[in-house]
This record gives sequence, structure tokens and C-alpha cells, in this order.
Amino acid sequence: MLILMRVGATEDHIQAVVAVIRQHGHEPLVLPGEDRRAVGIPDALSPDERINLETILGSLEFVSKVTQTSRPYKLASLEFHPERTQITLKGVQLGGGGPFVIMGGPCSVESYEQFAAAGEIVKQSGAQVLRGGAFKPRSSPYAFQGLAEEGLKIIKQVGDETGLITISEVMSPDLVGLVGEYVDILQIGARSMQNFPLLIEAGKSGKPVFLKRGPSATIDEFLLAAEYVLAQGNPNVLLCERGVAPLDRSYTRNTLDLAAVPVLKEHSHLPVVVDPSHGTGVARYVRSMARAAMVAGADGVMVEMHPNPKVALSDGAQALTPEQFLRLTAELQELERFLAALESRP
Amino acid sequence: MLILMRVGATEDHIQAVVAVIRQHGHEPLVLPGEDRRAVGIPDALSPDERINLETILGSLEFVSKVTQTSRPYKLASLEFHPERTQITLKGVQLGGGGPFVIMGGPCSVESYEQFAAAGEIVKQSGAQVLRGGAFKPRSSPYAFQGLAEEGLKIIKQVGDETGLITISEVMSPDLVGLVGEYVDILQIGARSMQNFPLLIEAGKSGKPVFLKRGPSATIDEFLLAAEYVLAQGNPNVLLCERGVAPLDRSYTRNTLDLAAVPVLKEHSHLPVVVDPSHGTGVARYVRSMARAAMVAGADGVMVEMHPNPKVALSDGAQALTPEQFLRLTAELQELERFLAALESRP
Amino acid sequence: MLILMRVGATEDHIQAVVAVIRQHGHEPLVLPGEDRRAVGIPDALSPDERINLETILGSLEFVSKVTQTSRPYKLASLEFHPERTQITLKGVQLGGGGPFVIMGGPCSVESYEQFAAAGEIVKQSGAQVLRGGAFKPRSSPYAFQGLAEEGLKIIKQVGDETGLITISEVMSPDLVGLVGEYVDILQIGARSMQNFPLLIEAGKSGKPVFLKRGPSATIDEFLLAAEYVLAQGNPNVLLCERGVAPLDRSYTRNTLDLAAVPVLKEHSHLPVVVDPSHGTGVARYVRSMARAAMVAGADGVMVEMHPNPKVALSDGAQALTPEQFLRLTAELQELERFLAALESRP
Amino acid sequence: MLILMRVGATEDHIQAVVAVIRQHGHEPLVLPGEDRRAVGIPDALSPDERINLETILGSLEFVSKVTQTSRPYKLASLEFHPERTQITLKGVQLGGGGPFVIMGGPCSVESYEQFAAAGEIVKQSGAQVLRGGAFKPRSSPYAFQGLAEEGLKIIKQVGDETGLITISEVMSPDLVGLVGEYVDILQIGARSMQNFPLLIEAGKSGKPVFLKRGPSATIDEFLLAAEYVLAQGNPNVLLCERGVAPLDRSYTRNTLDLAAVPVLKEHSHLPVVVDPSHGTGVARYVRSMARAAMVAGADGVMVEMHPNPKVALSDGAQALTPEQFLRLTAELQELERFLAALESRP
Repeated sequence: MLILMRVGATEDHIQAVVAVIRQHGHEPLVLPGEDRRAVGIPDALSPDERINLETILGSLEFVSKVTQTSRPYKLASLEFHPERTQITLKGVQLGGGGPFVIMGGPCSVESYEQFAAAGEIVKQSGAQVLRGGAFKPRSSPYAFQGLAEEGLKIIKQVGDETGLITISEVMSPDLVGLVGEYVDILQIGARSMQNFPLLIEAGKSGKPVFLKRGPSATIDEFLLAAEYVLAQGNPNVLLCERGVAPLDRSYTRNTLDLAAVPVLKEHSHLPVVVDPSHGTGVARYVRSMARAAMVAGADGVMVEMHPNPKVALSDGAQALTPEQFLRLTAELQELERFLAALESRP
Repeated sequence: MLILMRVGATEDHIQAVVAVIRQHGHEPLVLPGEDRRAVGIPDALSPDERINLETILGSLEFVSKVTQTSRPYKLASLEFHPERTQITLKGVQLGGGGPFVIMGGPCSVESYEQFAAAGEIVKQSGAQVLRGGAFKPRSSPYAFQGLAEEGLKIIKQVGDETGLITISEVMSPDLVGLVGEYVDILQIGARSMQNFPLLIEAGKSGKPVFLKRGPSATIDEFLLAAEYVLAQGNPNVLLCERGVAPLDRSYTRNTLDLAAVPVLKEHSHLPVVVDPSHGTGVARYVRSMARAAMVAGADGVMVEMHPNPKVALSDGAQALTPEQFLRLTAELQELERFLAALESRP
Repeated sequence: MLILMRVGATEDHIQAVVAVIRQHGHEPLVLPGEDRRAVGIPDALSPDERINLETILGSLEFVSKVTQTSRPYKLASLEFHPERTQITLKGVQLGGGGPFVIMGGPCSVESYEQFAAAGEIVKQSGAQVLRGGAFKPRSSPYAFQGLAEEGLKIIKQVGDETGLITISEVMSPDLVGLVGEYVDILQIGARSMQNFPLLIEAGKSGKPVFLKRGPSATIDEFLLAAEYVLAQGNPNVLLCERGVAPLDRSYTRNTLDLAAVPVLKEHSHLPVVVDPSHGTGVARYVRSMARAAMVAGADGVMVEMHPNPKVALSDGAQALTPEQFLRLTAELQELERFLAALESRP
Repeated sequence: MLILMRVGATEDHIQAVVAVIRQHGHEPLVLPGEDRRAVGIPDALSPDERINLETILGSLEFVSKVTQTSRPYKLASLEFHPERTQITLKGVQLGGGGPFVIMGGPCSVESYEQFAAAGEIVKQSGAQVLRGGAFKPRSSPYAFQGLAEEGLKIIKQVGDETGLITISEVMSPDLVGLVGEYVDILQIGARSMQNFPLLIEAGKSGKPVFLKRGPSATIDEFLLAAEYVLAQGNPNVLLCERGVAPLDRSYTRNTLDLAAVPVLKEHSHLPVVVDPSHGTGVARYVRSMARAAMVAGADGVMVEMHPNPKVALSDGAQALTPEQFLRLTAELQELERFLAALESRP
């Protein structure tokens, strides 16, 4: 931590800073400077200490700025955990150098028939994960809210019948147990990224957690949300970039931040998945963005597909048709082979 | 709803749109145009119908754009509910032309002594509402998380002793009942603005709900979140502007969107409160932003104050000292009298 | 154009709207509605009329909203100009289904030696365009500002020696003539996207114009800026996505909006190029974002490369080394062949 | 400047950093640390050196982050220039503790009659500055572009007749001389904030410069733009906050960042003016935002007023009527007296 003084700070101001640091059991280092001085704390600080010291020192007179010299997350950090996380479910490896993961399925589970039809297409495509919402977060209270436990039962049944890994969203901590009984991966949606009681409960469940980035979350906030889950002793977290708040809402629903893929891969060991369906909100941009996610280095994509998008009860405008989905997965598989061959060149 | 066709749409494309609208029981109006045509639906649509029709029509061939011609919220709308909402608690009127409401207190309840000291200052200042967090949403899992039920008991005790209205945050639906037993107003934080199970539970509780705007929430999303509470039959919602995701994080923590005050007052009947403490994240900008909120037409402000901010366990950098708080409240009261006199001029 | 009335508008309010529209020579269409009414203008409006009518009608009493039912650009629009623009320079086709265009070179021209070394690498890589700044827009007045005309002469010389197409930025209208004498393509930087006198002058010059999207420009504003150039009778415009204002500045300098590629290709006939160097500001993210740009459907990329980035006078942190550049261009060429093969499948 | 190493950096990596710093003539200070080390440069660096060193050091192996420990602007900084700037024109003091400045007038000069009528109202209101555009930056090439020199002549004439200070926008460096002949203050618009040739030319002119913040400009970028003018030896710069790129364009055109007022006043000695007309884009929000700007500590406001906004050729929807303008200025004058009385209390 570095405490930069204002121009004109006197020896007394410096000593006030020094005293606070010593009170907290650390030895400060006073740095000379021509027009302003600074005080450093060379010790590693616990996260708790960092926050307290930042607050206290920042409010002292003639302190200009307190700078954190390290990142706030530890368990999610590649620096501290140099081995990449791989999660194995139903014999399939997610992340950690395993095959590119394709997650497909409708926004909402609407009926056994609809979801079984979706599952069949996902299975046929070679994708590994089947998605479907049973509890739906909807901006409007008047929109379709999902089939609840009835939907979960359908997911479980189709998961068993197809052998696909299943994923579904959980929206409140008291439902973590219920959702976890029926599905393989707990999804935490973008609007819940900082629902801390939910993160803690999902962490405690031990189930793999698929965490979506909030629409205005910085990278640090995103990794700290993952840290909440990891801190419960649950190492199985997948990160999902799904678009940030857009500067222009008239052509896409969000701004897909694909550069977050290499950023997250550089700073964290957790698998990174991209959701081009919510990331754009427009079915006809999904293909190009899914392909782009793969070449950008993502470990997988989550894509909305509906057996009949024109009658979908939610988010139909962004869902692919079965034909589009099959074409996309086939292309992604070819692209994966091409990229593997490219990498293996001398 | 207006469906704009692409240039080159044929009569068949128009008829496909017309057919869908008639299937849904409405009579379309085909609008002529020189370079492109459009189809209008003059009927009022239920929110459900609007969403379904938008999705289905938007995915038809040669449809260029589907435009909503009305706002998505109804219960929160001033157009449909022209009388402004006023909430009366412990004999004090909040909103609806009542006195300017000042809510003060520490970020977190730390001990009875700390909170009683805060309560005494709030009482002395003439402010009406005492705030304090018992359950704290913190970006980092390592930061202080609050005293939980112990904190709620302290809030209740100090509320009873001072006669002040109390408010505290609730973060998950299963705790709505517990928090509601101890405090007068349930606060729903910015990170929970779209925690729909929480909104529904808070709505059902019948307790007044203080709803903070999410950092990337549009005005429509904010009012739809309020609509979730109102739709449960709970009319007592206060809206709080607390800053949106900033374009520059190096001087303030958020960008306080003060123009949201007149916008919300124009479109909704609900009281509007501004939080300049979180809205800037810097104690020395709170005074100017609190004053600005009043003259911008807000019904109140929520301000962080700590008996001793330098030892606060959370958010100390943005809390006022007791002296600063007393000075600010005195100024706001004078400014309120001045503005009332100004308004009453012929 | 559609004029939506407020709830409670009377026949008199409707007639006031109708009268204004008739004054402007158009025949309005009054649309019935259950809870509110609307007035449409079926005629095609000139851009001038649209702006005037929107302003006047929007300020009438009981008008709730004026909605544009068509896009504001015409010359840049694919709907009105269904053939894709292709620009041919020195025998190379840019855009319009031609080969993927790679533009490489240093941020600034520093000396003949440096730029000739860069040119040689660009030539060797098979890239088609050599870039280099002679006039540099720099946020700080204290940063290196470029070699000016001396730099242009170096660009011309190296362009002649290598046969590469050259591009360099022009920052003010009075320099359009000078820069145009020395280089093949005029670059208009992101900070100049709405420098209208510059756009007009560049349009008049007839030289191909490479227009970068401003950091907070919407798609409509971007295409309207292109429209300024096109409206001068200059059809040769290339659009460049280079990142928008980021929500998080701590890992990347901008947020590269790759979904803008399919959006622009859907709505405009102009070639679309992506700049991953400025779009991220970090050399080690350039490779993944350049590859992603290609598979997203871009017509080309512009990449910073410096013979020795560690001694670059500007933007060294985002420039590739010659080795990295050669590896990237080779990969892009293989990827291009792969994608062409993929497209040509039945 | 502080160079933070990655975890695992060896003594060799540290020595590479040390060597670069010594090559540049500075003595580094190696800081110990438990899990990672850092190197500080205690010397004051010239802006040039800072940029070069940041670039070079940032690209070295095992360097994690280079942190600037001071702000990049000097001439605009209150720390280095503790006396607040006051500009005197036609006997009126702008900024520096002088009276609150009100600038009013139409978006565009349309005719002598229109502008003289506007001037009369501004004069009558007690406002000090008359604004009007002769050269108009318009997003669309089809919108009204202004009367050019004809408009400047009208401004000069009405300025002479009323004795008001005049201000008008200049959009390109070659017109600085021309505009400067006719008006008292050169306005540089938001879209031109980083038009560096224009900033330099305006700086050289010696005329007072009214600099608007760009819609995505950080505070540092804004003050660096002012620094460009100041660095030419022209001390007369006024800063104008006029709204930043909004997260929601459906109710206001921009997000007025009123907290920028106390931020700018804390870090710079330059006068700060707020433009609530462009800052919201809606005439009926101008009153509340203008009042809020004053209590937030601004030195003045710029407000659009048109003798007849319903026939204005540009931006009519945001212009006040003469009646609204007179009422607002009267209120602001009363509010100013009230605030002065409030400040002078013991």
C-alpha cells in the first residue's frame, strides 16, 4: 500500500500517517520526493487490514491518495494458484485445457416436450451441457416467471435421458438446496452477481457454480464475487462474460466485452465461458460472437436455442433455431480442430 | 406498439405481421409510407402481451424494428396514479409534499454505544430517520459483514429510545420477516435492485420499502423493480438515486445522476430520495450534493454519519462527522424554508 | 414519425399536433388507442424535416414522445445502397468481399530508419497497408506530438519503396490537402469523429477516409459521421471500431465492441476494420482480439507494430514486436483460408 | 512513480527495472515486501519522462503494474497554483469568487431580430453573458449548420448594443482568428475537447476559452485539455460540465455529472460552469439542474433560451422560453443572496 501526501504536507502530517501504520503493527517506509512525499507499507496486508487502513489513512489531513499495490482477490488469482481449474462432470472436463464446452438450450423450460426436443438437439450437436431456466429473473413483474420446481424436474429427467450435464439458475439462497438436487451446475445470473447470501450458500453447497458477470461489474468485482464462492471451500467456479451495460441500446441489448476473456485468463485460473445470446440480445449476431469467443481464448460458450423461437415465452428474439444451433456447433467444432492444429505447429 | 417494416417488404410480409396480431385478438392498422411501411396496434396491451408480441413480431422476416409506444410500468406511473404517494410513520410524513426527509446514521451498526451516539446526533439535528446496516453487502468476502440480528436489536432499541424512524437493509427474501420485525423501513440495496424474489417478499410484507437504483439500471428498469413491490399490493415504496456506474472511478465512486430526480418526479408518484454518500463515495462532496438534491426537487436525502468516522469498520471515507452532519442538516433546513418562501411567491 | 400523446390528451391537443404537421405539408394519420392516442406521419421526411418536426412536436403540450421510425442515415445505409463498397488502391481491394486487410505499423513515425524497418516487416508479412502517425493527438500537451510534414515525407518514401498502401492521421481541416499529398488513405481519429469541418474537408478531398468510432459514439452517430464524408460526394469510407469508453479502466484502455462488426455490416455497405491495439491498449491482448475480429466478420484489422516497442516514443505498451506481428499475420492468413473453406461448404 | 513486480519476480527482474530507471538519470528505491516487491522513483518526473518510463517499464517482464503517484496536469492544478483564476471582461468578473455568472441565449443565431430579442431578455434578466452559435456542430450533415460569419457579425452587433459579454463556438483552428475578432469568449464544444490543434490555436489567441467536457472524458483528460490551452501562455480558461454519455438515453440526452463541480473546484483553480440545457436535453429539467449547479458550488451556468423555442432551427426542445428564463435568473439571484448569507454565518 502506498500513501501519497499532498503538496505542502509537513513533517507532522507524515508522522500522523506513520503513527497509524505502526498502531496497526506494520513498519512504514517514508519515501522522499521533490514536490511531494509518500509513505509505503512493504508488508503483505490481509484483505481486512487493507480495507481498514485505506479508509483510515485516506481520511487523514494532507493525504492525497491511497493506492493499492496488489489485486484484492487471492483464491481466484492465477498468481497464487498457477494451476488452471478443471471441473469434471459426467465424464466431461470443463476448462483447464479440456475440450471447448458448448452449453445450449432454451431460456425457459416451458414443458417436457419443449425441453426434451431441445435436449435431443443439444445431444445431437455434440454439445456437452443443457441449459434451461426454471426460475426466471425478469425485469417486469408481468413477464413469464418460469415453471419453478416443475421445471427443475423436467430438467433432471431430460438430463438423465440424454446424459447431458444440466445447468439452471438459482435466484435466492433458500433455493440453492432445491435447485442443487436437480441440476449439475448452479447458475448465478448477472443481476445476482453481488447477491452475497446467494454466493455464500452456493459456495457451501459444493456444487459447481456458473457465475455471470454483472452488467456494471469491473473485473475486480467479478473476481471478488467468485472469491465469495471459493472462500466457502468450493473450488468449482466457472466465470461467464455476458455483456456489460451498453452505451447504445438501439442495436444490441448489451456490449459483449470479449477482451475480458484474455484478461480473465491472464489473472485467474478459473474457466471462462462467453454468453453471446444475452451479450448481444439478437439471434443473428450470436454466430459471429460465439466464433469470436472461441478464438479469443474462451473455454466455452452458452447459447440460447429454442425448438421454436417464434413461440418462446421469453427472450425468443435472441434464441437460435435448431438448424442455426446445429450449424453453429458444427462450425465451432471445426474451428476448434483448426485452432488446435495451429497451436501445435512449431 | 408500432411495427416498422424494412425497405423492400412486400405485401406478403405485411400480411404475416397482420396475421400474428389478429391471432392475438387485436386489430392492426397498416400505415402507408413512401419508402417503407409500418403496422400499428392501437389497442392497449397488457404487459404480458406486449412482451410476447414484441418478441414474435421482432423475429419475423422484413420487420425492421418494434417500438413500444408506452412505458412498461403502470402502478409506479404518475400518469395512471396522479396522486403522489405519502407514507406516514411514527407521525412523520415521507414524500407527497411533506417536509424534506433527512436520513442519517452509520454504514454499519457496530455496537450499542456507537449506534446510540449516532441516534442522539440524528435526533438532535432534527432529522427524521436513523439508518444503520446489520447485514452488509460487501464486494469483498474479507470485509466486515455486519452484526446480523444483534445489530437489528440495537437498531430497534435506539429507535424506541429516540422515537426516530429506523431503516436497515435486507439482502435475502428469507430475512424479510426478521428485519421487518425490528425496523420501520426495509432497505433494498443497489446490488439487490433486481433481486426479484426479494422484491416480491418485501412487497408481501407490507412494510415500507426503500429501493435503491442499481448502478446500471435505466429509469424503466428502476420503476419496474418498484412495480414488483407495488404489484404485491404494497403501495409504500420510496425510490433512491445513489449514483450510476461511473465513467471515471478515480475521483468519485459513482456518478450521482441528479437529473433522475426531476425525471422520476415527472413519471412516478413515488417519493424520491438521494444518497450523496454512496453517490460520490467521498465525505467532502456530500454537503454540496445533498444541497443540490434538495433544490433539484428530491423529497429527502440519506447521509452517512459516524460518531467517529476514522474508526468506522466500513465505508469510513464517505461518512460525515457529527459536526459536519449537524451543520449540513441545519443548512438543509434553512434552504428548505427559503425554497418554500420562493415557491409561495406569486 | 410517430407522435405519442400523454394519457388525458384532449381532442384540442390532438388538433394542435395535426395542425403543425399540415403546416409542414404532410398529412397526419390519427391513431386510436384505449388509454392514449398517437399521430403518425406516413410520408418519408427529409432529414431536415425530421429534426425540425421532432423538435417542434416534442415541445407541444400533452405530447409524450416523438419516435423516429427510420434510421437517420441514408448514404451509409445498406438498405438504400445494397451493394457493398469496395475501395481499390495500388491494385489491392479493400472491403466488399476482397481479401482480409491487415494494416500494420508504428503509432508514430520517428525516423526514416524506424519506419523503413517497420515497412519491411509489413511487406514481408503480406499485410497490405502501412500505418504511421505524423501528427499525433495526445491527451497530454507534454507527450511526443509527431514529426509533422517531415513524418509525411518518410511515409511517402517508404510507401513508394515497398509498394504498400499508406495511411496516416489528419487532425485539422487545413491539413487535409497536405496529408493527402503524401498518403493513400486519410485517417480520422476517434477524438475527431465529430470534427465536422474535418469530415467535410476530407469528404471534399476525394481521398479514401478511414474513420474511427468515437469513444462514446452510438452506431447512429458513427454512421452519421460517415454520412458527412459521403455527402460530399466521396464514396470511399472505411469504418473502424477501436473500443468505446470502458466501465473498467484498470485492465484495458477501452472496451472493444466487437458486436459492432456484425451490426455495422448489417446496416451499412461500408467496409469495417477493427483496431485491437487501441481497442485494448495492451499488446498481449492484440492477438486474440485480431483473430476474433476476423471471425466476427470484419473486413480487416489495424495493428500497431514497432521495430522495437521498448523504445517507442508513444503507445509502446500496445505495440507488437516484429516477431509477434509476423506470427499474427501468418495466423490470420491461415484462419482466412480456413473460414473461406468453411463458407464454401454446401 | 511506483513499479510493482509480479509474484515470483527474481533479483534479475528487479535489476532490469533498476537499470532502466538509472539509464534515465533517476535513483530507484527498491521496496521490500512479503509476497511481491516494488520499485519506487522518488524524483519528480517531467510529464515526458513519466510517459516514456511508464511505457518502457510496463513492458518489462515480471512487472505487474506501473502506478502514477501524481496527477498528470500541472498548470490547471490548484495544488501548484493555489490562487483561483478570475477573468474580467467588460467590467464583469468571471469566477474566482465573483458573482454567479449566467450565460443565456439561443443555440443558433438565426437572424438579427431573433438574436437582438434574445439579447434584450438576457440583459433584462441581469445575466452577464450572451451566447449564440454561428458555426454549429451537428450530428447529422442534414441539420442546420449555422449562419457562419454572418452570425458572428450579428453577435458582435448585439453584444455592442447591450454591453453583454459574448460567447460563440469555434470548431476549427483556422477559424480561431475570425471568431476571436467578433466575440469575447471562444467556446470549444464537447465534441472538440480533444481537438488538439484547436486547443493550441485557442491558447495562442490569448482570448478567454470556455472549454466543454467531452462526453466520455475523465476528469484528468478534461484538465489535460485545459492544460493544452494554458501551456500556450493563455491563463483564461473556464471549464464547463455539460453531461457525460448516459447509461439511459430514453429520458435525458446526457447524464449531468454535478459532482464534477466539487471535484474540479478541489483540484483546479479554473472557474467551473454547468450547462444544464445540453446536460439534460430537456427544457423542463433545466430549472432544477441550474439551481442544483449553483448550490453544488459552480461559478455559473450556461442556459439555452430562445425568443420562440417552438420555431427554433436547432435544439428547440431544450431551450427555455423568455418567461422561463427570466423566472430562473430571478430565482438564481435570490438563491445566490441566500447562500451568501448562509456562508457568512459564524
